[in-house]
Amino acid sequence: GGVSGHSVFKHKLVVALVGLPARGKTYIATKLAYYLNWIMVPTRVFNLGEYRRRKLGPESPAQFFHPDNFEGVRQRKVLARQAIEDVLQYLRNDGGVAIFDATNSTRERRMWLQRILNKAGVRVVFVESVCDDDQQIRNNIMDVKVRLPDYGALSVDAAVADFEERIKYYRMRYEPLSSEQDADCSFIKLVDVGRSVLLHRVQGYLQMRIARFLMSLHIKPRHIYITRHGESEFNTVGKIGGDSSLSPRGMEYAQRLKQFMDEQELPNLRVWCSSLKRTIQTAQNFDDVESWKALDELDAGLCDELTYKEVEEQFPDVYRDRATDKYWTRYPRGESYADVVQRLEPRILDLEQAQENVLVVCHQAVARCLLSYFQQKSDLASQLPYIKVDLHTVFKITPIPYGNLIEVFPLGIDAVSTYVPRIPTALLDSPAISTGGRGDDGG
Amino acid sequence: GGVSGHSVFKHKLVVALVGLPARGKTYIATKLAYYLNWIMVPTRVFNLGEYRRRKLGPESPAQFFHPDNFEGVRQRKVLARQAIEDVLQYLRNDGGVAIFDATNSTRERRMWLQRILNKAGVRVVFVESVCDDDQQIRNNIMDVKVRLPDYGALSVDAAVADFEERIKYYRMRYEPLSSEQDADCSFIKLVDVGRSVLLHRVQGYLQMRIARFLMSLHIKPRHIYITRHGESEFNTVGKIGGDSSLSPRGMEYAQRLKQFMDEQELPNLRVWCSSLKRTIQTAQNFDDVESWKALDELDAGLCDELTYKEVEEQFPDVYRDRATDKYWTRYPRGESYADVVQRLEPRILDLEQAQENVLVVCHQAVARCLLSYFQQKSDLASQLPYIKVDLHTVFKITPIPYGNLIEVFPLGIDAVSTYVPRIPTALLDSPAISTGGRGDDGG
Ligand SMILES: Nc1ncnc2c1ncn2[C@@H]1O[C@H](COP(=O)(O)OP(=O)(O)OP(=O)(O)O)[C@@H](O)[C@H]1O
Ligand SMILES: Nc1ncnc2c1ncn2[C@@H]1O[C@H](COP(=O)(O)OP(=O)(O)OP(=O)(O)O)[C@@H](O)[C@H]1O
Ligand SMILES: [Mg+2]
Ligand SMILES: [Mg+2]
Repeated sequence: GGVSGHSVFKHKLVVALVGLPARGKTYIATKLAYYLNWIMVPTRVFNLGEYRRRKLGPESPAQFFHPDNFEGVRQRKVLARQAIEDVLQYLRNDGGVAIFDATNSTRERRMWLQRILNKAGVRVVFVESVCDDDQQIRNNIMDVKVRLPDYGALSVDAAVADFEERIKYYRMRYEPLSSEQDADCSFIKLVDVGRSVLLHRVQGYLQMRIARFLMSLHIKPRHIYITRHGESEFNTVGKIGGDSSLSPRGMEYAQRLKQFMDEQELPNLRVWCSSLKRTIQTAQNFDDVESWKALDELDAGLCDELTYKEVEEQFPDVYRDRATDKYWTRYPRGESYADVVQRLEPRILDLEQAQENVLVVCHQAVARCLLSYFQQKSDLASQLPYIKVDLHTVFKITPIPYGNLIEVFPLGIDAVSTYVPRIPTALLDSPAISTGGRGDDGG
Repeated sequence: GGVSGHSVFKHKLVVALVGLPARGKTYIATKLAYYLNWIMVPTRVFNLGEYRRRKLGPESPAQFFHPDNFEGVRQRKVLARQAIEDVLQYLRNDGGVAIFDATNSTRERRMWLQRILNKAGVRVVFVESVCDDDQQIRNNIMDVKVRLPDYGALSVDAAVADFEERIKYYRMRYEPLSSEQDADCSFIKLVDVGRSVLLHRVQGYLQMRIARFLMSLHIKPRHIYITRHGESEFNTVGKIGGDSSLSPRGMEYAQRLKQFMDEQELPNLRVWCSSLKRTIQTAQNFDDVESWKALDELDAGLCDELTYKEVEEQFPDVYRDRATDKYWTRYPRGESYADVVQRLEPRILDLEQAQENVLVVCHQAVARCLLSYFQQKSDLASQLPYIKVDLHTVFKITPIPYGNLIEVFPLGIDAVSTYVPRIPTALLDSPAISTGGRGDDGG
């Protein structure tokens, strides 16, 4: 009998976006892709607009999208066929989920898609974004459309006009998904940026997780702040894990942090900490702090309360495995970074969904996992465990179109460095190597 | 600053069911109430039918529900008013969520409800169940309606006919919830037993968790099997926690378990285990086992690998706290039962949602948490940590109307007992008390 934590994801899936232009399809595709990659479901976006620009050159005026433009229709069908071939190729290799980011606005196109994919043994779930709020659509066009390569040197006004014409042409043939007419399809319909959500025949673990994620999204402006606890007594002696109190400098940070947050002048703020003393003390100047055990530091198991030097001496295998594959290596009786990501997932849904501003006071490894989600980096497993998260520093996250702005605020209070650099693999044969990192909380 | 893990639930909420008779409203209300209580949100169901039977006597023929029966309409309004008064009383005390289980089938009734509740500072989310599958409705009537006290000694056929007439009368005035006409309401509409789900203005953490739970429900027949790992080496020497292998008798159980499950002749089966050796070995005769770290045994922290006697000697405070409040007491650097319930919650959603049969191979404390969810006991915090879950025993759970049938199969292979009985508080002053329990895995 084979044991695996991931067999639940063995089914290959295509998520096909549906919707008029400027309805947030690419926004949704991008967020979903990073989310799925973050929970280690290999996912890639196939954007039909990029196929068009690659094949037909950067500029496409609205006329290209007119339903009676026979040549335009033919060319777009050829491009779709090409994209779907690439989708299937990706899934035949080690891809898990392919996100097909196109308008897919007619029932005929969707049935064609479903037929080809089902024949290849792949399931499809459609994700439609509907929005009839004109102001929202105009904002979207200004935010992300007028700067498209499609418009080369066109003026903003001309670009807006052209884009609105493009929408008009798509609308002529647009057939929204419906529980009656598409009774046999699996689909998720997002109406007016999450005001309502319709789930239809959403089946199985993976589709359900996708639905839960999508229904948590919103685009109201807000900020998320992430910081580690203030310097702890263990930090100062280079021990990992434990449940020590703050050092005097750590206490100073707790005060400085409150002051910094006050200066942000936020209309509302939720504050989260972990169950460990050092984050509770760091958050102690705030009201109504929520303590989440899921935010506790990566559990170093039998290595808890050791220094890195002691880990190297007493658990040389663990030390070596972490040097070569830090993300997947589980401390004996403890956790790996992969484990931490899994237990943090409900916190990420909660952060996505929160309408308030949130300050998360956590730990080095936890901050790395959270930041990696918002940074939307690729090659996560190899990068995540080495993200630099200094003590006494606030990371301010602001959602922007297709991503997040991350600003770093060192609050100017000295602290030890707990960063352990990647060990060059060539050096791993030498028994004398020690990184000298000081108490990075098991991270 | 106050720290708490529960301030997220500070908002009082009424969940008001909506739907024709025999649409599963009471079924949904019951499941939701047990789920919320299980995650420690104090919740109570207020069933209008019970108010009617208490006040007007057990028998109510269909004519009572005719919309032109003036006296019937008046009486039902009085009953609703009374129920809502009790709802508000409950929420003013320490209630968190009140579930109002009634048909609430007209817009007028719902607006009345919303007005009263909002005036009292309480939010409402409506949960509507729609089902037009005649066969399903007839099954529901046969399953749970013909035996209602309403029908006294009536024959089954007469009872069915009367109940169908009652539905007809409700249908005359029924106004389903709609995104357009009820644009400002928060509601969750379940169509055809979860085939589609519409979420409208579902806001905030608690409403979102309720939505996630409801969208996971289905009523296809299947079974869930729960067992602990086979007897481990630590079990035989009375140590808690650890990551030991199975004893020879434990190995025998692994084989017997496979045989037992084969004899169940299930068309499909998912098998879950934890990340610890003893569950992996117990599940080793099955194919495609999924290993979930969230199923690991309650973490005994600094008490890991001790015997109960040693815990009592080395951590007398922990020992005493667990004796008086086992559910909430967290082992130093480890977990409480409350912590385990929180990390198991995604597994419960997955079990609810799974269409396949599932065998969960886990640990004593984890099995207690899972079983307590399916047993739907009240007074959870005081009962849960003492549920008897013997080694080498399979618990077979079968969903039945409003609850679960739990069958217990001891598979006849000897094992040590790991049960630690409740310590009478009177004895706690005596330093000589020891329960002599043997290695109950931290539970
Ligand atoms: N559900 C939504 N409904 C409407 N707008 C949204 C939604 N989600 C995100 N947005 C906004 O949409 C903008 C991004 O539009 P995006 O490029 O994703 O549209 P698109 O549907 O991919 O358009 P196109 O068909 O031209 O590729 C962002 O400004 C984002 O804030
Ligand atoms: N979403 C659903 N749609 C239809 N039937 C369901 C649903 N969920 C559960 N059921 C089935 O409904 C039956 C229970 O009906 P229940 O008593 O809950 O109906 P009710 O709506 O409360 O009726 P009444 O208005 O007479 O109180 C069970 O047999 C259960 O399997
Ligand atoms: Mg796009
Ligand atoms: Mg009922």
